[in-house]
Amino acid sequence: MELALAEARAAAARGETPVGAVVLRDGAAIAQAGNRTRELSDPTAHAEMLAIRMACDAMGSERLVGCDLWVTLEPCPMCAAAISFARIRRLYYGADDPKGGAVTSGVRLYGQPTCHHAPEVYPGFAERESAELLRSFFRERREG
Amino acid sequence: MELALAEARAAAARGETPVGAVVLRDGAAIAQAGNRTRELSDPTAHAEMLAIRMACDAMGSERLVGCDLWVTLEPCPMCAAAISFARIRRLYYGADDPKGGAVTSGVRLYGQPTCHHAPEVYPGFAERESAELLRSFFRERREG
Repeated sequence: MELALAEARAAAARGETPVGAVVLRDGAAIAQAGNRTRELSDPTAHAEMLAIRMACDAMGSERLVGCDLWVTLEPCPMCAAAISFARIRRLYYGADDPKGGAVTSGVRLYGQPTCHHAPEVYPGFAERESAELLRSFFRERREG
Repeated sequence: MELALAEARAAAARGETPVGAVVLRDGAAIAQAGNRTRELSDPTAHAEMLAIRMACDAMGSERLVGCDLWVTLEPCPMCAAAISFARIRRLYYGADDPKGGAVTSGVRLYGQPTCHHAPEVYPGFAERESAELLRSFFRERREG
């Protein structure tokens, strides 16, 4: 989760919502990314999406069988669905996102009968640091 | 919807699931794409995602305010969320997708209390042609 947190901090430094994600295969990081929606003018450029796309590119496959994804924030419906499509094995995440999440919050996508592949889900990794990064980012923006 | 159908047919010709999407602004197409998940080895490369990313690139903005999206199939949770993030004004779609859709099927994302922006939704445009493209594509694959 340290790599994901580093990506989240780098995103904050770029003025982006601080979320970071890493894809691991056999214990090695094959892709890592922070949120880049503003830089790329791309509403789909969430950290998870970029990391999944990089990992698929590295693997030459649209399925990341046996790969795990670490992300600092609970994935939104877009990212949760992409994680399912990519056949991610295990999802580890930091802070819960009651307002925007879709894993343990909101639509709980992986519990839906129409979900073809659900990763194993492990929430609460580095939860405090992940949440504090987001809190201080938005606090500074309000005050700035 | 003719442009979206043409993109869906072109996708089928490439061996991709035949779905096509177009983004319109002031009545003019500013982006159009077909599904390219296989070609790009990218599980996020659904027609809607590619069209939204192209349109955002063309507009230099992560928000497509005042733009409408036409797509031949009911969007999945990933695409439905991206459509919301992009602030698409109106969503027109062809065939319903009871197994994979997230608009009038499944999680009905735009009816969720956590959804910040819901487009106006108009289903059933060129529904028969859209569905028939998908049916014949999968029939040929089974028989092939």
